[in-house]
Amino acid sequence: MSDLKQKILTMVKDDLAEIETALTQNLNPYLDLVSQTAKHILFSGGKRLRPLLMVISAKICGYHEPAAKTFSIIFEYLHAATLLHDDLVDEATLRRGKPVAHSIWGNSTAVLVGDFLLARSLIIAAETENPKVIKIIAKITENMSQGEIHQLLNKGDFNLSESEYMEIIRRKTAVLIQGACRVGAIIAKADEEREIALSRYGLNLGIAFQMVDDLLDYTSDTSVIGKTIGADLREGKLTLPVIYSLKAASTKDRTQMENIIKSKNFSVHGFEKLIGLLKKYKGIAYTQQFAEAHIRQAKEAISLFGPTEHRQLLENIADYAITRKL
Amino acid sequence: MSDLKQKILTMVKDDLAEIETALTQNLNPYLDLVSQTAKHILFSGGKRLRPLLMVISAKICGYHEPAAKTFSIIFEYLHAATLLHDDLVDEATLRRGKPVAHSIWGNSTAVLVGDFLLARSLIIAAETENPKVIKIIAKITENMSQGEIHQLLNKGDFNLSESEYMEIIRRKTAVLIQGACRVGAIIAKADEEREIALSRYGLNLGIAFQMVDDLLDYTSDTSVIGKTIGADLREGKLTLPVIYSLKAASTKDRTQMENIIKSKNFSVHGFEKLIGLLKKYKGIAYTQQFAEAHIRQAKEAISLFGPTEHRQLLENIADYAITRKL
Repeated sequence: MSDLKQKILTMVKDDLAEIETALTQNLNPYLDLVSQTAKHILFSGGKRLRPLLMVISAKICGYHEPAAKTFSIIFEYLHAATLLHDDLVDEATLRRGKPVAHSIWGNSTAVLVGDFLLARSLIIAAETENPKVIKIIAKITENMSQGEIHQLLNKGDFNLSESEYMEIIRRKTAVLIQGACRVGAIIAKADEEREIALSRYGLNLGIAFQMVDDLLDYTSDTSVIGKTIGADLREGKLTLPVIYSLKAASTKDRTQMENIIKSKNFSVHGFEKLIGLLKKYKGIAYTQQFAEAHIRQAKEAISLFGPTEHRQLLENIADYAITRKL
Repeated sequence: MSDLKQKILTMVKDDLAEIETALTQNLNPYLDLVSQTAKHILFSGGKRLRPLLMVISAKICGYHEPAAKTFSIIFEYLHAATLLHDDLVDEATLRRGKPVAHSIWGNSTAVLVGDFLLARSLIIAAETENPKVIKIIAKITENMSQGEIHQLLNKGDFNLSESEYMEIIRRKTAVLIQGACRVGAIIAKADEEREIALSRYGLNLGIAFQMVDDLLDYTSDTSVIGKTIGADLREGKLTLPVIYSLKAASTKDRTQMENIIKSKNFSVHGFEKLIGLLKKYKGIAYTQQFAEAHIRQAKEAISLFGPTEHRQLLENIADYAITRKL
């Protein structure tokens, strides 16, 4: 484990334990199959990034009530609900090194338990009795479904532009992380300036987070990231390293890249060839640098907060998001 | 068209037109595929029962603002979202005589557009800024997903009890209709007595409505109901006519019924044989009578309202629910 990760985990240890308890307790009264499926997706090594960010955002604004943990699980449930549906949509086989839920319990269960988790997150959101929070949560669910639909529509499209890619990742990933940070500020009754600052932090962190995710599909290997390497490409999902390189490539190299991508069952050799071209045309370096720029913006956004332990923690998380290997 | 249906349609003509407009306008700004898929499920001959009930419930409590129509579409969107997911779960092929959405656009689109419609309904619910309304909507979504999961878990179970069946249909169908009526009362700021009365009306109507739906699977034919006859059985879905008859049957007849049901590709002859047994053991008559009892309770619940046109309309809808042929 990296030093940074270890440092973060030490700082959030108590919060994390309370979030885990809240997650389990909230599911216990439900039908066996629901709990079982929900727990499979919820307790298979997730980082609890979203609830943690909500809790830390609330704390940095001076709110330390236990209610923060209860409300924070909204964001883990929402996340888990979308994972269940997205794995189905993507026909994924592995997540975090484990078989995906729909391959164990079937598509129907994955659809319905996803719906159930979404409903649970809304019930908890409604319990805040804060219309602003509720609207944000509703809007997040809309954005996420639209981001996923947008991505689905563009599968296999070699002309997907960088700005369309940015719009897709903003919606499918960043708005949820942004929402977690913003809701933390709202629950703490922070002033508008701080709410906007945390919102910007979350948005930029979320974008960088997804970019790194997309990078790892080319720079990691299956045993580390716990899913099939090159999975995005096999699903026809064009991400920034590819989009950038396709645009920069010579006609000959572009054709070669397109051919590798089109033959979805590409060989290891084909995949390595493609990675060579992504390096040659700087798609990997560009994505890395772009993600780093978003991390800088994320950290800058919270510079109005004093140099407290909580700000340090948010900065560490931002740094970790970009150096992580899984 | 029956006289009763014609009478109802004349009474609700203007409301219906305004609901249709609200439904279309709310979807127009969205991605083509989203609008297209959503419209396929929303504009294929649905009765708009749920939004209509909300609007009439508000009116009977003295609320006549146009906002009622805007809020009422929450219930049609929720309904459409669950239809998209349920048709997928049930592997249905036809709905209202048209191919189901997932057979046209694929499972992924059906999952994601269902999520989108759910999100839209929540956004409109949040716009009411009424915590009670929002909690009811969140709770409805939870109940519906649990009802569907419960049903899924019991597919093909010959020991499904009548009380389990009642619990399933309450959750998957009745809570939404109940919620529509109750929210109408809440928006009208009705007193608790009226809110409870309309809630009871909706719950009983919803239960009867689903029972009739389940009956039609045995008493109608494909060209009329617009879906495959015997579809429930083919999906392993045991409903009250079967549950009641299985329990009442002699060992020999029970075995025969079970064998027909187990051979999911039963012939027309087998199906007719089964219907004969459902008649012999009074499963069909029992379900019909039980549904009628719920309709009586629904009408009784609203007897505290004066003999106005709106009460007459709610009574007509209740009567229609039980006499309808599709």
